[in-house]
Amino acid sequence: MIVQKYKDMLKGKSVIRQLSEFATARGAEIGYENVFDFSLGNPSVPTPQKFTDVMIELLQNHDPMELHGYSQSLGIPAVREKVAQSLNKRFGMQYTGNHIFMTTGAAGAIAHAVRCVTQPGDEVLTFAPYFPEYQPYINLSGAVLKVVPANTEDFQINFQLFEEMLTEKVMAVLINTPNNPSGVVYTTDTVRKLTEIMAAKEKEYGHDIFLISDEPYREIVFEGTDAPYVSGFYNNSLSCYSYSKSLSLPGERIGYVAVNPACTDAEYITNMCAQISRGTGHNCPPSIIQLAVAEVLDLTADLSVYETNCNILYKELTSLGFECVKPGGTFYMFPKALEEDAIAFSEKAKAYDLILVPGDTFGAPGYFRLAYCIDTEKVERSLPAFRKFVREQYPQRISC
Amino acid sequence: MIVQKYKDMLKGKSVIRQLSEFATARGAEIGYENVFDFSLGNPSVPTPQKFTDVMIELLQNHDPMELHGYSQSLGIPAVREKVAQSLNKRFGMQYTGNHIFMTTGAAGAIAHAVRCVTQPGDEVLTFAPYFPEYQPYINLSGAVLKVVPANTEDFQINFQLFEEMLTEKVMAVLINTPNNPSGVVYTTDTVRKLTEIMAAKEKEYGHDIFLISDEPYREIVFEGTDAPYVSGFYNNSLSCYSYSKSLSLPGERIGYVAVNPACTDAEYITNMCAQISRGTGHNCPPSIIQLAVAEVLDLTADLSVYETNCNILYKELTSLGFECVKPGGTFYMFPKALEEDAIAFSEKAKAYDLILVPGDTFGAPGYFRLAYCIDTEKVERSLPAFRKFVREQYPQRISC
Repeated sequence: MIVQKYKDMLKGKSVIRQLSEFATARGAEIGYENVFDFSLGNPSVPTPQKFTDVMIELLQNHDPMELHGYSQSLGIPAVREKVAQSLNKRFGMQYTGNHIFMTTGAAGAIAHAVRCVTQPGDEVLTFAPYFPEYQPYINLSGAVLKVVPANTEDFQINFQLFEEMLTEKVMAVLINTPNNPSGVVYTTDTVRKLTEIMAAKEKEYGHDIFLISDEPYREIVFEGTDAPYVSGFYNNSLSCYSYSKSLSLPGERIGYVAVNPACTDAEYITNMCAQISRGTGHNCPPSIIQLAVAEVLDLTADLSVYETNCNILYKELTSLGFECVKPGGTFYMFPKALEEDAIAFSEKAKAYDLILVPGDTFGAPGYFRLAYCIDTEKVERSLPAFRKFVREQYPQRISC
Repeated sequence: MIVQKYKDMLKGKSVIRQLSEFATARGAEIGYENVFDFSLGNPSVPTPQKFTDVMIELLQNHDPMELHGYSQSLGIPAVREKVAQSLNKRFGMQYTGNHIFMTTGAAGAIAHAVRCVTQPGDEVLTFAPYFPEYQPYINLSGAVLKVVPANTEDFQINFQLFEEMLTEKVMAVLINTPNNPSGVVYTTDTVRKLTEIMAAKEKEYGHDIFLISDEPYREIVFEGTDAPYVSGFYNNSLSCYSYSKSLSLPGERIGYVAVNPACTDAEYITNMCAQISRGTGHNCPPSIIQLAVAEVLDLTADLSVYETNCNILYKELTSLGFECVKPGGTFYMFPKALEEDAIAFSEKAKAYDLILVPGDTFGAPGYFRLAYCIDTEKVERSLPAFRKFVREQYPQRISC
């Protein structure tokens, strides 16, 4: 029979999608170039030309039987080895190909990581503000996501609440740094303190607590930002990566789980992921995409536009009286709304063709997310709209 | 903590994989061309040149932002529409794009279909001989796979046992026609009788019983074979397709679920699949592969080699005294072993460099599977080995 649980999920439409649809509809009226659509986290710069060249070269010169043949369910061995070597070189790790499980993006990576280290009913902690898809990612696996409220001072971690919530039922902690939606990067101090607390609790409870580190924005870090490689701090770490953002390939669904070689049962985990795949229907990411990405592991799209946009928006919004923690990376920022109810705030902004996502969606009411992965020219054109919006709607808040 | 269930699965190594590894090792000794490796179901003919040409054209001439951008989690709308139209034209169905959910191959399709229509603990019936991956596909979803013993007379369906096992707990029936491993195609009579029984039981029990039809071999049907389109016979049908075999693209992970427009809640099912995806980490198949496949929907690789190989082997094996139901399609056949214990039989064959998979793996002990997706030249060279094997090991069985 039709399963009601999934049917019921259809009733809830994501706020982000509603706003994006509003932007599209409004664009049909006044031209999409005149809608300041900050709703969606889609890369706005093309993949490196080399990725395209490698794809064409593979198609032109390689035996199609081999090129399009089954990959092992863990991924193509030579690709896994190259990913390991690239991570070792950049982050001083000791991965081998055996520690890498190729996945269909970070969503696939988290789906496998969480099933490796949690049983149904176990708790997984994450920190607000957080990517809302963590709810289905974790809860549909049978584990239970619990959200540690935000440290709104700097969007690092509220350690007091974390320690209180890190009970014996917690088998994994899921973090996302650089963070969607705040744009904040956890500092070395934050990662050190987080992992020290986890290590102490592992000892106290007598069981592993895994750190699942979701890192799709790892390559988008702005000048002067301290951006430690999380798995270097904690043995029981599973890094979940996606090339969606760094190589601007969100549709091609390619990423991996990297298992810290020092973690419990490290020699089994990627093979366990392959067993889990048999149930999720994942199997392996597409062969040709694996092979092509392996040739551009140390490249990125031209990500500089995101920092440019960030600086423009941060300067303007703070001068307009917004409180905002300055992002250290990503293509998001997460200012405080100018009234308590960020949903009402976002609703009012629509009249100025400013599409802003209320922070409630991310577990941090009172804030709003700007996804500034759009052309700089459009960012600049949005500034008068912000000024007008604030001047007309919140005259008491503005100094100029 | 590390989940023991998946760790335990690592102890069981599939017989097919063991045999394939033996073949590879033996190949290193005597040259792989001298090992008659009938173990693996990998296509042996290249993808149509047009697929390659379309891929290159997309890479050369299309905006990379659009080409590699996020697909909707149901698949790219224009691709879904083209798949629907192709099925309608070929099979007289009434699909629209809304009835098509694009997946990473048939494994992804079945993973979503089974979660749509079964709760944990519900039973799913399949028929021996069956593809062994159905065990993890179904059981790791929480449902329970039960296997109706084979009708060894013709590898159609043992209806008496089916009716006995089709209790109130059964929410879905999973079939695979053309069949791996038997090569047999269910006749119109078989499909009609199957669906009539299911329809009667739906009425009796007062709940839906879905037919999940796994069809990766749908395009590999030999001359004169009656090969009905299953979903045309039963409203509550979900067709699970993969392009792995028809287009020789097993590594590229592309397929779909096609929801019969007349089934219960037809308007919800593909959207439910997209909700399920959020938990499995599936999201969507790679954009470029979706776009390329959409341009070659009605093409296939040159599949004629499989029929040629089938005829050569069938003639030789039956003349050697093997009992065998003649395949109507696929690239498999499933003769009766020359002794009761097919595992012992397969073990003895290895001495003749014949790699044959015992039927126990497929729920039909006493039989063995030949995957003849290899070059015809090699099939011909294998015949003396079969003769020698039978003459020396089973002299009483041979007439010549």
